[in-house]
Amino acid sequence: MTDKPVTACVLIIGNEILSGRTQDANLSFLGRRLNEIGIRLTEARVIPDVEPVIVETLNWARARFDYVFTTGGIGPTHDDITSACVAKAFGIPLILHPEARARLEAHYPPGQFNEARRRMAHTPQGARLIDNPVSTAPGFQVENVFVMAGIPVIMQAMFDGIAHRLSGGKPLLSRSLTLALGEGRIAKQLGALQEIYPDVEMGSYPFNREGDIGTRLVLRATEAARLDAAALELDEIVKTLGAAAEWDLDLSPHKK
Amino acid sequence: MTDKPVTACVLIIGNEILSGRTQDANLSFLGRRLNEIGIRLTEARVIPDVEPVIVETLNWARARFDYVFTTGGIGPTHDDITSACVAKAFGIPLILHPEARARLEAHYPPGQFNEARRRMAHTPQGARLIDNPVSTAPGFQVENVFVMAGIPVIMQAMFDGIAHRLSGGKPLLSRSLTLALGEGRIAKQLGALQEIYPDVEMGSYPFNREGDIGTRLVLRATEAARLDAAALELDEIVKTLGAAAEWDLDLSPHKK
Repeated sequence: MTDKPVTACVLIIGNEILSGRTQDANLSFLGRRLNEIGIRLTEARVIPDVEPVIVETLNWARARFDYVFTTGGIGPTHDDITSACVAKAFGIPLILHPEARARLEAHYPPGQFNEARRRMAHTPQGARLIDNPVSTAPGFQVENVFVMAGIPVIMQAMFDGIAHRLSGGKPLLSRSLTLALGEGRIAKQLGALQEIYPDVEMGSYPFNREGDIGTRLVLRATEAARLDAAALELDEIVKTLGAAAEWDLDLSPHKK
Repeated sequence: MTDKPVTACVLIIGNEILSGRTQDANLSFLGRRLNEIGIRLTEARVIPDVEPVIVETLNWARARFDYVFTTGGIGPTHDDITSACVAKAFGIPLILHPEARARLEAHYPPGQFNEARRRMAHTPQGARLIDNPVSTAPGFQVENVFVMAGIPVIMQAMFDGIAHRLSGGKPLLSRSLTLALGEGRIAKQLGALQEIYPDVEMGSYPFNREGDIGTRLVLRATEAARLDAAALELDEIVKTLGAAAEWDLDLSPHKK
């Protein structure tokens, strides 16, 4: 296990996310799950179904991050161009993958594994398949790039199947509390605390729920002892403010 | 009104989105609202609260797109660094904006416009304020960059206040239908139709809702006559498939 953070980038591919028709649900899932295995989601990009944009973005991301995860664009229709773009980015041919083809042939009723669906059996040459226990059509991995479906239930099942292929660093542990005060009331003390604990990332997230103003404070660190020490100090600060404050369940500053 | 598409990029700034703690709700809102005024959201990036990343991404985006919208990072706490990064990206000083300061001073009870909250009155020199009718602390505009809050209700109110400053091209009109069939059953005909109508963007979005598999087909174009013609042909194709299909309300292929 290394001390250097292991990083990831997510590429969300699809016009439907950019047009606002579809609300992305994959980013928050991947952010949480990657963090659990010690991989930090460091950036995400939402890009359209446009070949040069996908190719350029993919080549940028795979050189810069330890892992790249793509979602979307691997179905049977003309606008599903992710697989071809990945092949192009790597400079390797797109081929009919024998195992993917066999799985899809077995999946569909006789005569329904048509020409369009054969698109879904194509991968860059040498790609390693990613199982799809929901609807069979597989994703695939080429080097540090994992190509997955866009439909959340399928993407999540695919991720479950590849999590064991990933090597993380130290996971970021976290403690968080909700404070019934605007963040401007604790900003100064929080900033001072941050200076004392440069190794504990301190985030302040205001919210406004039907007129109730409050702040969620999140501490994150790889070292439990440092995190606990910072959380105890934050707890003291919060008590002096005299407002309602609640630590997340099982994550009180006194618990490991 | 020009025929060249007017483009936009959204920068979602905040560790909490990347960690998966917070589900972004701003992208889909902006995608829809921008499209209504003829501006195409062409790319979005989710980036952490890290100065060089924000500065670099902002400078890339403002040179490449007609408009850039940022969300997040303009509050009073130490991790709110968006305003300073925008100033740095433009190479202009960050100043205490007199009007922003006056608004905030009037907003808080005496003695509560503290040092931390004064951060929220800082903008790059010469910035034009963006009103915040929810909680006063303003956003701001510098050239083609619009800096807004991350809390959705505030961001939406801010956008309503600046929409009149934006000049769009022709809006993309759309027709969409939901088909009770996997997309592989219509992929071939849809691809052929796309070739006949290169000026009509055709998207196919499969879904899997509690085991119900279906496809949403979306046609988008700037010219109503072309869109209607393509929708009528698609309607014919769908009828031959014999599956349940429903056009979105008020958007049947026979209506303008």
